Amino acid sequence: MSARVLPGSVTSVRGVRAAGGHCGIKPERPDLALVVTDAPAAAAACFTTNRVQAAPVLVSREQIRSGRAQAVVINSGNANACTGARGLRDAWEMVELAAGALGIARELVLVASTGVIGVPLPMERLRVGIPSLAAALGPHGERAAEAILTTDAFTKTGAVQVEIAGRSVALGGMAKGAGMIHPRMATTLAVVTTDAAVAPPLLQQSLRAAVERSFNRISVDGDTSTNDTIFLLATGASGVPVLHSPQDEGFAAFQDALQTLAGHLARLVVRDGEGATKVVEVVVTGAASDEDARSAGEAIATSPLVKTALHGMEPNWGRILAAVGRSGAEVDPARVAVSVGGVRLVEGGVGSGERMADAAEAMRAAEFRLEVDLGLGEGTWTGWTCDLTEAYVRLNSGYMT
Amino acid sequence: MSARVLPGSVTSVRGVRAAGGHCGIKPERPDLALVVTDAPAAAAACFTTNRVQAAPVLVSREQIRSGRAQAVVINSGNANACTGARGLRDAWEMVELAAGALGIARELVLVASTGVIGVPLPMERLRVGIPSLAAALGPHGERAAEAILTTDAFTKTGAVQVEIAGRSVALGGMAKGAGMIHPRMATTLAVVTTDAAVAPPLLQQSLRAAVERSFNRISVDGDTSTNDTIFLLATGASGVPVLHSPQDEGFAAFQDALQTLAGHLARLVVRDGEGATKVVEVVVTGAASDEDARSAGEAIATSPLVKTALHGMEPNWGRILAAVGRSGAEVDPARVAVSVGGVRLVEGGVGSGERMADAAEAMRAAEFRLEVDLGLGEGTWTGWTCDLTEAYVRLNSGYMT
Repeated sequence: MSARVLPGSVTSVRGVRAAGGHCGIKPERPDLALVVTDAPAAAAACFTTNRVQAAPVLVSREQIRSGRAQAVVINSGNANACTGARGLRDAWEMVELAAGALGIARELVLVASTGVIGVPLPMERLRVGIPSLAAALGPHGERAAEAILTTDAFTKTGAVQVEIAGRSVALGGMAKGAGMIHPRMATTLAVVTTDAAVAPPLLQQSLRAAVERSFNRISVDGDTSTNDTIFLLATGASGVPVLHSPQDEGFAAFQDALQTLAGHLARLVVRDGEGATKVVEVVVTGAASDEDARSAGEAIATSPLVKTALHGMEPNWGRILAAVGRSGAEVDPARVAVSVGGVRLVEGGVGSGERMADAAEAMRAAEFRLEVDLGLGEGTWTGWTCDLTEAYVRLNSGYMT
Repeated sequence: MSARVLPGSVTSVRGVRAAGGHCGIKPERPDLALVVTDAPAAAAACFTTNRVQAAPVLVSREQIRSGRAQAVVINSGNANACTGARGLRDAWEMVELAAGALGIARELVLVASTGVIGVPLPMERLRVGIPSLAAALGPHGERAAEAILTTDAFTKTGAVQVEIAGRSVALGGMAKGAGMIHPRMATTLAVVTTDAAVAPPLLQQSLRAAVERSFNRISVDGDTSTNDTIFLLATGASGVPVLHSPQDEGFAAFQDALQTLAGHLARLVVRDGEGATKVVEVVVTGAASDEDARSAGEAIATSPLVKTALHGMEPNWGRILAAVGRSGAEVDPARVAVSVGGVRLVEGGVGSGERMADAAEAMRAAEFRLEVDLGLGEGTWTGWTCDLTEAYVRLNSGYMT
């Protein structure tokens, strides 16, 4: 019953305006985004699990407690992380600047930053930039999506329509990549809006479930950032009844739509992984438990040797077995089966050898599946990874200069 | 009191002969090695902790139980891993071939393999190669060291002299790299010999302790192999009294010498890490526990973003803090200090910004230190890693072809 993703963005949703522009944190590219709802909205968030947390994460953690928000202000080009007391003051000032420019209570403003770690924010740019961006609000979700990018090659947006209680409800979203991406955390930066009406506790529960099967299942390089944040704002502007409980009519459809949109945005992050040329869906089945399936899947999805083999389009299943073997998951080598691009290469832990050319051919596709059946139980896990390329090394060995 | 490493190899030890040669597993390069003691020696071993274990690992695990061995036969070019029942038969046949050619009991032969996973061994080559190599035994430790290499650029050998009970005792060793190297396992392939006399249980204890602070502290790419093995043979040919207990006179000196040699070989493996241009000593201090220090150190040593920054000679301490933050170690960002190449960059979790150029200059060296003080307790850890380069990706995306 999975919903379909349509072109669209955070402003595909009734009651949401946005803007994106350049305020001078980056030399030339857009670096400041605003997403604003017409009235206070129900709000939920997930944050990085990294113990080193950027100032805007600390501020937004405090702000989200009320379950209400009306604006999100995001800058790119500077993470405001590891910036000490000054960083916290600066993040709070971003909140004040947005609240002042929009004429709303400061309690209703969420904030996020992404970019270089350890450099203080150029507040003089933001003092000019935030008010002027507030004056430019409109149906500009794409511009906002552009302004939150760092090393990304393209914007990551999408929308989903779903029917609740006989009325059409919209969800729209944006995300950014493209490095420091790993499953064991909340996510990268993303904002999702909806005109559904959802009580804050249920909204938080709904977001957490959707993130668990989307942003928490992707890996670009195994690193997790100090700034990862996803916000979900529900305006209720569709006029549908407020959802309070998972049993309420329409909640299942809403959850499915949110899951679909989050999965779409997360896969876009992988597709735009730094230097990546392949998106690979890693499917582990037959594990002794779901937790074992996750361990095995994450070991495969983060192994440099697997990821370079994906890049070279070599069906090097020995590296896949070696990754599974070190993952901590229960493994009986004599029961393992491996398929790459739909071609079965290993059966009972032993390679066929004959179908390598077929698998190599299947790996020429930009997206394919890598399947491991451990043959032990009912545990499963699905995630998404990309290949490791020379371009990744080039990008990341000259990031600061 | 650390001992000094001298040029030398497994045959720098009285009562040990070796040979290395080409039997045809690889197209041209040496691919078969023998290390043989004049009489049965005390023997110890550590093996990979990967759950997928190659056939020779399974065979040598069984053989080492007696605590005695007289020969080690090693082939490169083929790992004999994931080869099922046939692989096990082939590993046992390698044992039989060596025992027959040397005229010794098969219980005294250890075996190891390294190379491509999942391809059956070409036994016809080994049936000719092992007897002819047995006829070439002599003081040829360097040739043996050459024959165990895979993607390595140079041989890894060394020797240490130590005095026990007024007599000179020698230790000699060889190791190979250069990919699938990670701390959380036993080691890569290595053989260490000594003419000390050590009872097998103490020899095993001694080897495990030395490996814990050498081969278990290095990382090239975070992957661990199906074949990792280190053997230690003690001939007793120096004529010194047999060591039975850690309290015996001379054992401390022996342990120090073994630790020194193992550390030397392990660092050579890092220096020859696939595509590596830098060896970086990672030192974590001030952790809440040694286990926390290890978690933080391993997160730094395996982070692709840290390793690409090392390559680019960028003192990107934000990535170091982000790695520590996701490591699971207890971290209070306000107490963290970071130095790179002896230059203090972060104090109390905040960057100075001013000394970046000095640090970048220090990172031009081929070897330097990266220090993180968590400021919380007494836990420490030291390990060695290398940079992640475009050459690593090139090497590993075209390995099979």
